[in-house]
Amino acid sequence: MTNQDIKDASAELWQNSIPHISIDSVVFGFLNNQLNVLLLKIKEEENWILPGGYLQKNEGIDDAAKRILYERSGADKIFLNHFGVFGDLNRSEGYFKDYPDDLWHKQRFITIGYYALVDQTQVNPIPDHFTDCCEWKPVHPIPNMVMDHEIIIKKALSTLREHISHKPIGYNLLPEAFTLPELQGLYEAILGEKLNRGNFYRKMMRYDILIKLDEQRRGGAYKAPDLYKFDEDKYKKALGGLNW
Amino acid sequence: MTNQDIKDASAELWQNSIPHISIDSVVFGFLNNQLNVLLLKIKEEENWILPGGYLQKNEGIDDAAKRILYERSGADKIFLNHFGVFGDLNRSEGYFKDYPDDLWHKQRFITIGYYALVDQTQVNPIPDHFTDCCEWKPVHPIPNMVMDHEIIIKKALSTLREHISHKPIGYNLLPEAFTLPELQGLYEAILGEKLNRGNFYRKMMRYDILIKLDEQRRGGAYKAPDLYKFDEDKYKKALGGLNW
Repeated sequence: MTNQDIKDASAELWQNSIPHISIDSVVFGFLNNQLNVLLLKIKEEENWILPGGYLQKNEGIDDAAKRILYERSGADKIFLNHFGVFGDLNRSEGYFKDYPDDLWHKQRFITIGYYALVDQTQVNPIPDHFTDCCEWKPVHPIPNMVMDHEIIIKKALSTLREHISHKPIGYNLLPEAFTLPELQGLYEAILGEKLNRGNFYRKMMRYDILIKLDEQRRGGAYKAPDLYKFDEDKYKKALGGLNW
Repeated sequence: MTNQDIKDASAELWQNSIPHISIDSVVFGFLNNQLNVLLLKIKEEENWILPGGYLQKNEGIDDAAKRILYERSGADKIFLNHFGVFGDLNRSEGYFKDYPDDLWHKQRFITIGYYALVDQTQVNPIPDHFTDCCEWKPVHPIPNMVMDHEIIIKKALSTLREHISHKPIGYNLLPEAFTLPELQGLYEAILGEKLNRGNFYRKMMRYDILIKLDEQRRGGAYKAPDLYKFDEDKYKKALGGLNW
């Protein structure tokens, strides 16, 4: 990114965007039993940055979040959930300190955080004009990030963990028929730790959202593991949560 | 509120505050088995408004939320949780349409929502300069609100309901020793519906956060009801939530 590139961008942003508000998205992907996060690297920059941008004068925040994620990463049709706002003093102000004071990017920004958990094979990351790369990076450990973006990822991750502590997860992330060890792998990837197999099995059964299939997966030398699918109705009901 | 009052406020706000960002707090109070919300009525205005205000240039958003709630209602030392951001187009822009275009309040605002659930007897609402009254109003049904403030209250309420669907509640809201019907009353006030007594009892016992006391409450003509207190350690552990 040249000096002139960012100054041109600044002029256009002052024209069309709402000052002081930015939007950052934390998109988690699950592949091969590993939890990843979609990150960008700005040209000539060492550290990683979240796909983020600015709210236009003529759009609502949810629409802006979708547009920004698409423009910066090529990721489309992703259901984003708001999970937090980051508005401490000096969270981003120092990052553009070498630029003139009227640069758009040098303002104080309060950033609105969105997150998603997606099937990574459905997203093909594409770098934009300002970035050298747009990639899936492992979450454990979080790569070196600019500004407070590590804090933002950690908060998104704790929101995701909170979510799986009381709601089911896995639909659209696992194959239609899956084994319990595969489901356990998803939970372990999100939690970043190994779980006890017996405990996991009992808690899952208590959830009562799985249907055991008659068929078994073939191919291994050992006893074929049982296959399950989600009971769609019960899964959706459990997603609703409120059940007093 | 006179025309001059609001114009004076506008000039000062342009000086000291961050444009386009506002903060609104939804403070729920529990008293006599009823769920209430802390609301203001602006002078010469029919409908109610949430205690809200603007972020100063030199403060973080969490500090701003506390300051604003205190200034507008007198409510102090309240632990506020962020629960949502409201940034649709035209959510607030029409409200000051009769004022000049350079009025601070006439901007597009993206509002950051905070909520709390408090022991109502600990808060003594005091109206500020712009308001006629600051009062606890019942949540069921929500009174007539300005702008999108009814949507904001509903979202705060659904966050609170979500919370009680998987974490304990009641500490600091009930007397130290309480009966199960009293605890059930708190849940019913938040949910806005009657619960089946047997189901509630079984779910509470499964939570394993209550200690049955030896003493019973005296005074009634009927059999004295059993008294319980929270098991503080187990309550706090359950608050943590993550338990895979």
